[in-house]
Amino acid sequence: MAHDTRKEIPVRDVERFQALALRMADEARTRLLALQKSGFEVQRKPDGSYVTSADFQTEQALRAMVEKEFPQHGVVGEEFPAHLPEAEFQWIFDPVDGTEDFVTGIPNFGTIIGLHFRGTPVVGAIDVPMLDVRVHAAYGLGTFRGQQRLRLPDLESGTSPALTRVMLAARANFAKHGDWGDTHFDRLTRAYPNHRIYRTCYAHCCAAFGQTDVMVEYGNKIWDLAAAQILLEEAGGRYHVIQRLDAPGGAVLAAVFGKPKAVADVIALLA
Amino acid sequence: MAHDTRKEIPVRDVERFQALALRMADEARTRLLALQKSGFEVQRKPDGSYVTSADFQTEQALRAMVEKEFPQHGVVGEEFPAHLPEAEFQWIFDPVDGTEDFVTGIPNFGTIIGLHFRGTPVVGAIDVPMLDVRVHAAYGLGTFRGQQRLRLPDLESGTSPALTRVMLAARANFAKHGDWGDTHFDRLTRAYPNHRIYRTCYAHCCAAFGQTDVMVEYGNKIWDLAAAQILLEEAGGRYHVIQRLDAPGGAVLAAVFGKPKAVADVIALLA
Repeated sequence: MAHDTRKEIPVRDVERFQALALRMADEARTRLLALQKSGFEVQRKPDGSYVTSADFQTEQALRAMVEKEFPQHGVVGEEFPAHLPEAEFQWIFDPVDGTEDFVTGIPNFGTIIGLHFRGTPVVGAIDVPMLDVRVHAAYGLGTFRGQQRLRLPDLESGTSPALTRVMLAARANFAKHGDWGDTHFDRLTRAYPNHRIYRTCYAHCCAAFGQTDVMVEYGNKIWDLAAAQILLEEAGGRYHVIQRLDAPGGAVLAAVFGKPKAVADVIALLA
Repeated sequence: MAHDTRKEIPVRDVERFQALALRMADEARTRLLALQKSGFEVQRKPDGSYVTSADFQTEQALRAMVEKEFPQHGVVGEEFPAHLPEAEFQWIFDPVDGTEDFVTGIPNFGTIIGLHFRGTPVVGAIDVPMLDVRVHAAYGLGTFRGQQRLRLPDLESGTSPALTRVMLAARANFAKHGDWGDTHFDRLTRAYPNHRIYRTCYAHCCAAFGQTDVMVEYGNKIWDLAAAQILLEEAGGRYHVIQRLDAPGGAVLAAVFGKPKAVADVIALLA
């Protein structure tokens, strides 16, 4: 981009933001693991998807941490109205991404945390508590799994589509875009038969770790993708928004991210 | 069935077979976790799929356990030729199901172990070491997760296809059947948009636990499905073979298993 406004942010501030994101991830992990043991209340939203007491309680706890430490920052979460929506800094998170897995006990659910400055990500973290997986990144400071800095290799030249490892959203997410989304699901699964569908942010971790060559996300709200861009870009990967649609309750996004060559191949396939 | 020949097997023998299956699962777990730490050799098979030193070493170790304890039993594994293929009792296993996940460190790989008597399953076990997941079953003795006996509830009456939880094989597996397999992948993912694709036997555990309502497996060899039938049937679920094709290197199977009503719905969809 012509001018990256993130360069205006002092590194010391980026480090403070990152420290808060990691404390938020710790808080979420502690709560979600405890709730998996103690039990929680489950309800259905009007669209039939689950929401639990864990979603509400965890989002409130994370909101309180931001409001205490950075009262001038905005907050966008899945379950409550936006706080200070005009602020330059916006904390965007999904306390329980993969609520259906949280309810059934499949260990792929996690917490997504991002801080964006004028719409551009500065800090990102994903925590998958039952898998003991954590990945975090901050602008200019790199992407880390624990203490280990991640440097994503590119897709090996000559890797056939049949051997390329692809993760993607379920058809339910593609269908939210209208008919063309459905077509894209078919085109992707035909071109890349070696695919996995997890329906949680664990797939974003796999993209940052290079365990999948590319991840294709459809029908996402902003909190679902709050961390992916900075996690991938700071690891040497690429993040590309395929489409952004305005919808009631906020924009719906489609994005592809992972090893640069694999991302370029998917963009070409869907063009 | 008219006459279940498994009733001829003394319960004491079933218990001994089950005990061996569990020791084999322990042995596989110990080896696979150690190899994840120490590292292992990786090669590509002619079809591009991975095979590792872990596959060979683990299969040899499990074979030796069977040959020592039940020298009159046959053994069928993925990596070595069949042993005593005419024996009534056949131990059938896949030491590392999900080798690609084993190589990339995604924790969904596991070991599948089954004992069949005249082609019908008597004992089954799946161990997913990195997730600390184990499920086992024996004819007449039930399905267990650790000490807990599993009783699968049926699909709630009135559950819409959109909310039904489906796991299925990737299109790569469906395509092994020829064109109609591809059509079945489309039909399933359209009818059941809330689907997950793991590409390992962890999905079979999820079916036994009721974490998915149904699992649809295509393009499988006999060792991939060595445990699923007994795990599901002894838990009160249903297992149904959709198709069995003769192919070089052994039959290729498609099967659906899970909550009885969900299995019936999938059979009707694909009829």
